[in-house]
Amino acid sequence: MITLHTGDLPGWPEEGACEWKEEARQAQQRLEKRQGAGQDMTGWLELGAPLDPGLYRRMKELAGRIRGDAQALVVVGIGGSSLGARAALAGLGGDFPVFFAGHHMDGPSFHELLENLADRRFYVAYISKSGNTLEPALSFRFLRALLEKQHGKQWGGYVVAVTDATKGRLRALADRWEMESLAVPRDVGGRYSVLSSVGLFPLLCAGVDIQALRQGAAECRRACRRKDSDALRYAAWRTHLYRQGKRVELLVTYDPSLAMLAEWWKQLFGESEGKQGQGLFPASAQFPADLHSLGQFVQEGTPLLFETVLWPEAASRDLTVPVWLAGDDGLDPLEGRTLSWISRMTCEGTRRAHGDAKVPNLEIRFPAVDAAGLGALFFFFEYACAVSAGILGVNAFDQPGVEAYKKNVKKLLFP
Amino acid sequence: MITLHTGDLPGWPEEGACEWKEEARQAQQRLEKRQGAGQDMTGWLELGAPLDPGLYRRMKELAGRIRGDAQALVVVGIGGSSLGARAALAGLGGDFPVFFAGHHMDGPSFHELLENLADRRFYVAYISKSGNTLEPALSFRFLRALLEKQHGKQWGGYVVAVTDATKGRLRALADRWEMESLAVPRDVGGRYSVLSSVGLFPLLCAGVDIQALRQGAAECRRACRRKDSDALRYAAWRTHLYRQGKRVELLVTYDPSLAMLAEWWKQLFGESEGKQGQGLFPASAQFPADLHSLGQFVQEGTPLLFETVLWPEAASRDLTVPVWLAGDDGLDPLEGRTLSWISRMTCEGTRRAHGDAKVPNLEIRFPAVDAAGLGALFFFFEYACAVSAGILGVNAFDQPGVEAYKKNVKKLLFP
Repeated sequence: MITLHTGDLPGWPEEGACEWKEEARQAQQRLEKRQGAGQDMTGWLELGAPLDPGLYRRMKELAGRIRGDAQALVVVGIGGSSLGARAALAGLGGDFPVFFAGHHMDGPSFHELLENLADRRFYVAYISKSGNTLEPALSFRFLRALLEKQHGKQWGGYVVAVTDATKGRLRALADRWEMESLAVPRDVGGRYSVLSSVGLFPLLCAGVDIQALRQGAAECRRACRRKDSDALRYAAWRTHLYRQGKRVELLVTYDPSLAMLAEWWKQLFGESEGKQGQGLFPASAQFPADLHSLGQFVQEGTPLLFETVLWPEAASRDLTVPVWLAGDDGLDPLEGRTLSWISRMTCEGTRRAHGDAKVPNLEIRFPAVDAAGLGALFFFFEYACAVSAGILGVNAFDQPGVEAYKKNVKKLLFP
Repeated sequence: MITLHTGDLPGWPEEGACEWKEEARQAQQRLEKRQGAGQDMTGWLELGAPLDPGLYRRMKELAGRIRGDAQALVVVGIGGSSLGARAALAGLGGDFPVFFAGHHMDGPSFHELLENLADRRFYVAYISKSGNTLEPALSFRFLRALLEKQHGKQWGGYVVAVTDATKGRLRALADRWEMESLAVPRDVGGRYSVLSSVGLFPLLCAGVDIQALRQGAAECRRACRRKDSDALRYAAWRTHLYRQGKRVELLVTYDPSLAMLAEWWKQLFGESEGKQGQGLFPASAQFPADLHSLGQFVQEGTPLLFETVLWPEAASRDLTVPVWLAGDDGLDPLEGRTLSWISRMTCEGTRRAHGDAKVPNLEIRFPAVDAAGLGALFFFFEYACAVSAGILGVNAFDQPGVEAYKKNVKKLLFP
């Protein structure tokens, strides 16, 4: 169960002051009735449903082959083709090595990756709807050369193409070089695709319980569709704060393993809402570290931001403060306290301090950093984002501005 | 040599349009004459000078002992006590394992660290001006317990306290438990301390050439004090853009090893300028990855940001795009091209695309990601930040807002 908590501190708008609930409901209706902008890209709404047994069997078979036959998987992808799996893996860990490539063009990083793989048997999951994106294609060139060195003409057998079922360059490459392949659903965009084969296949290879992930999403989907759901309230609140003049939403995590989830969240909201000169700029911070960095700005700088704290209700692998007889470090009163309790007090104290400075503070609580919890969180944010963009009146599912940079780079690279 | 490049694209202000140069010069004069706000905290201006031979000998002796006797160093610190060394190490690498703790209160991260250290001989560098900060003190409790388990009553011999020469809680602990210690200069604040013992000692232990780092800073210091220096121009430009209504400065790196340097930069500017309701919110992005994430917002979202690209002139460990006979991935024209060339074209194309959208774009070029280059960059940003804050009329060297959260947390933890 994911819940949104708004505050009762000085400087916080009252619950009743949030005038955007009705707008949120209307946006929700358009979304649920598939009547809003980009309605042909709302397939993600059903990605909480139980996995199609045929697809699950196929993914399990491929993942089983990779885990049995090789020592590593390299996921080639950028943006929505990699951020979801990276975010989930950072939080959940895995029992099989998965590397990510395709999101950079950096010599030292490639050197390191290729050296790591040189004496290892590995597979590549090349994830791209089209196969036309420069960065992953470039990574694939390097990895393919290494695969060919290891396996000769049979190198295609070590690649799984996650791409369109019938169209595009990667589809053609897959057919020609006899790669295994998995279809990307056509009605799901990159940043909404973590619960499809795009995110699930790498996670399955890593050893994550993807059924639990979907299950968490399914429960959240049921909660979200209610008229007073917390996803709706979140969409309404952030719209309210935006209309009040806030321009930056700072997603705050206290758990370092959630830092990549914040990166996924930034793409989701930034790319969905940043259109027609509108939208909150999505930024993130890791507390307590960044309390000694951005904290000063939050407290006393330009009043352009509000915070959204992401908080798991259950702590993972907690620890108790050890006794230090005659230690004299000032921490004796904390002996026997858990780190999670100290963290929570830090979160509360920070909320009060920032509230005193009239920085609005939302909090999203979720059960735990486990597969079900992250599955729910992915869906929660996707739903809230689609509603929030719906209130703004922009298409939550396209990204016309990304083409501008691609076109300009293409002119220089392929004159 | 560090240079600032402003653009000539549509939507860019003309060089002549920058009316803040005179203000920048005045702020520079106040800084150089030690007449501005916080003038007793300007000791960092001299941290480009050759290292005091006595201090260098002492640090070398301690680092030599640690490297010879142990298998790892754990740096305990938060904010300015750790970000500089972490940033430099991420860029430069090292030949001795250095772990960082003290910036989180996270169970799983502690478990991992303590498991990593359980069968290893290690030393701790506990870096704190006062020893009163909660997060590092808490980390030290855990590490101390492990040291005592390993060494009994002699555990103090495995700690180097980097703290005030005579005052404070950590000083008292160091004296009582017979720790080795290094003094933190009193006239240098945390976020300006990377070129002092605070940053240099961990880096020396890691195997970084700290003399080259200081040398790079020294050269930059000579360049900065000129009346038309690029650090001054940077300060003037960001002020200009701020006064024009921009509210977010997005520091863009293309080299993943510079991501931590961006974190250091965020603390430097956010904590120095975020006062009295003023200041640009410092954010960062890693391109090309974030072109497929924040790129859409930059191109078409709320027009509240400008970009500052950080670009090393020399590439590290470059690679050439391999040939793929009959590959059909569309990249044949790039065969034989270097990654650094492709990256540069991507940077140029992106600049044009964002320029077309009237997003101003500054670029800071530095020679290379090496010790001298990072030393110069650290100094460049410190100087530009002090001048920029000087134009705003705030004290660049205090952080009164950080106390608010500390006070509130203290109330909850030690009622």
